[in-house]
Amino acid sequence: MRIELLCTGDELVTGLTTDTNSPYLEARLFELGLKVERVVVVGDVRERIGQALREASARADVVVVSGGLGPTSDDFTAECAAEAAGVPLVEDARVLEALRERVARRGRELTPNVARMARVPRGAEVVLNPVGAAPLFFLRMGGCLLFFLPGVPREFRALVEGEVLPRVRAELEKQPGRMYRAFRLLRTVGIPESVLDTRVAPLARAHPRVVFGFRTHAPENHLKLMAEAPSQAEAEAALAAAEAASRRELGMAVYGADGDTHAEVLARLLTEAGATLALAESCTGGLIASQLTSVPGASRFLVGGAVVYTEQMKMTWAGVPAELLARHGAVSRPVAVALAEGVRAVCQTTYALSVTGVAGPTGGTPEDPVGTVYCALAAEGAPTRCERFVISGDRDTVRLFAASHALELLRERLLSVSSS
Amino acid sequence: MRIELLCTGDELVTGLTTDTNSPYLEARLFELGLKVERVVVVGDVRERIGQALREASARADVVVVSGGLGPTSDDFTAECAAEAAGVPLVEDARVLEALRERVARRGRELTPNVARMARVPRGAEVVLNPVGAAPLFFLRMGGCLLFFLPGVPREFRALVEGEVLPRVRAELEKQPGRMYRAFRLLRTVGIPESVLDTRVAPLARAHPRVVFGFRTHAPENHLKLMAEAPSQAEAEAALAAAEAASRRELGMAVYGADGDTHAEVLARLLTEAGATLALAESCTGGLIASQLTSVPGASRFLVGGAVVYTEQMKMTWAGVPAELLARHGAVSRPVAVALAEGVRAVCQTTYALSVTGVAGPTGGTPEDPVGTVYCALAAEGAPTRCERFVISGDRDTVRLFAASHALELLRERLLSVSSS
Repeated sequence: MRIELLCTGDELVTGLTTDTNSPYLEARLFELGLKVERVVVVGDVRERIGQALREASARADVVVVSGGLGPTSDDFTAECAAEAAGVPLVEDARVLEALRERVARRGRELTPNVARMARVPRGAEVVLNPVGAAPLFFLRMGGCLLFFLPGVPREFRALVEGEVLPRVRAELEKQPGRMYRAFRLLRTVGIPESVLDTRVAPLARAHPRVVFGFRTHAPENHLKLMAEAPSQAEAEAALAAAEAASRRELGMAVYGADGDTHAEVLARLLTEAGATLALAESCTGGLIASQLTSVPGASRFLVGGAVVYTEQMKMTWAGVPAELLARHGAVSRPVAVALAEGVRAVCQTTYALSVTGVAGPTGGTPEDPVGTVYCALAAEGAPTRCERFVISGDRDTVRLFAASHALELLRERLLSVSSS
Repeated sequence: MRIELLCTGDELVTGLTTDTNSPYLEARLFELGLKVERVVVVGDVRERIGQALREASARADVVVVSGGLGPTSDDFTAECAAEAAGVPLVEDARVLEALRERVARRGRELTPNVARMARVPRGAEVVLNPVGAAPLFFLRMGGCLLFFLPGVPREFRALVEGEVLPRVRAELEKQPGRMYRAFRLLRTVGIPESVLDTRVAPLARAHPRVVFGFRTHAPENHLKLMAEAPSQAEAEAALAAAEAASRRELGMAVYGADGDTHAEVLARLLTEAGATLALAESCTGGLIASQLTSVPGASRFLVGGAVVYTEQMKMTWAGVPAELLARHGAVSRPVAVALAEGVRAVCQTTYALSVTGVAGPTGGTPEDPVGTVYCALAAEGAPTRCERFVISGDRDTVRLFAASHALELLRERLLSVSSS
């Protein structure tokens, strides 16, 4: 099956925006054994979009078009599609109604430019956009099936998953003699990519049907396993064997698979354990709390989090003794311990995490350079654990790694408790 | 001058690598007033690369090709170029010698696959690569000048700066009546894209030399102004006029320009005012604190932030009266007000922001459906302000918009104070 992508938007040809939609869709298609033949990116120029549509539809079986479906004057992909297909634009009543309801929910009137989004090429199959305003539509031009999606990454990805991939799979089923693939992403934290690579290399040789790939997604590294076989069952079996071997080799560095996030896994472990959590964050400044509360149902385990940027608040909210701060300084092992134990006492939780450090770019000392971070875990009926890390990178990097180090202290504890 | 980019490599069509070379080059060219007309990405397939070369060189004045110049079996861009230009590959003695010295420095022999890199299309102008092995070369096909660069970002960027841009500038100087450009990105918050479009449309008509574009970056919308004129001075003047008119029309919805972020602007305003801030976050769960503390120097204004997920912590950390929670419920105007005033009193700050709401996906009520958020701003010597918002979207969207609504309450206050 020949697949091409067409991305439209001035921001994509002026360096303002990096196209992340294409790699996302390409990776998902590759999991189906499909390699995109060509990606074309053009600015918001009618003739150019029209020409690219005609060329791509003449070459490919499937073309995924993104961008230019919005309400603004530089959105005219639908017009170009209609022109290229030689059909008029027609108003889709269902879309118009959905748009009217959408703006009504925001207490506004349906303006003409919003209504424009209901105009689609005649004969196009239209699907309402569950996560945005602009609808997506499918159009057949000759032997080619074209998908038209909004360019907003959040909408693009949701519609790829919900609409494009199922239809592409359906088209694939019709094809004879195809290879089947099975895919697993193992998400690791705490192992550098080079170490991951070295440890996994022997496994790759032992599992010839599986391609081992790597993806760095700071502070994490991901191991991509892709099995290919003449049948889905064989592909699944080869994948299962390679995954089991990888998990044995990497142990608890593998925190999750596929769509898991580090915070989701922590949330699941805490909820399963019926445990509660409190946080005292200095240099991470609410990052850990924000990551955990982005998980639905976080209120089941998170009692409270204190962002304690000043010494006063470390005392007021986490009960850190003034003399401890005076003696050791805010960035120190004793203060990290006192923060964790103090906030756990205040919030009366099973566990408490604390982070104090120097995120930079300034504030380092010879003993504690920028990037120095102390993470502590206080637990009911167990001694408090405190670790020191020196993280290299900019402010955001230090904060990201500090947060993931802290969550790891908790994950290790929860796993050891549940296994004991 | 019509410019196109051609990027080659299987990693670019399988989602393994995101093409960062194109945005880099596009941005540098845009600074010269050049907008890339088309970017084409193809995998390592001879016919496809050859076809793309012929098509691009037929359309454009300049084509920048990247990738496929290395020593491995899937590197054959030079062959494709020679074939497309109808000339043979010839060995460049100078390149061969440079390659021999390069491998010698590493104590190795010149292998045939490395030597392959010295073979370039006859008639091509060859430049040694100062930062890598593969040389770059320039080739004229008909009226088109083609640059062939390695795809490795470090090498690509060095060669763009050292070789491509100077030559493009030289070509530009030759052109009579070339146009110059000036660019500004205005960052707005609180205006839907469709409303932004409607309000800006008349300005676009009043400023014919300026192209008005839009970019949605939830929860923000950005207005792109691009001025074009026969001289840089005229372009700058046209841009300045359009920017001034846009700022007049959009008022304080414009929070910043170009590289600014919402949090940075708030941080700047607070620091300039010598003001301090405290936060009490329920449904945003530390997101606001995290955004603000990602700005270097946040400790100059942020005293503390309380993530108060339970009623108990709303009482303990922000001094919210139990009876208030019992009477109105946690998601209510009185509690939002009490949170802001309470946390301000505890942290003894100039300002305090509070957010309480239903982020979803569950927890809504008929009166307060999912997405209902109350934001309050308490200020020294001023009545507390509280606003109710109903945000549609998933949990992350509700949290993002709630955070930006809260920051807007503070920004309005800081601007009114500084202007009064």
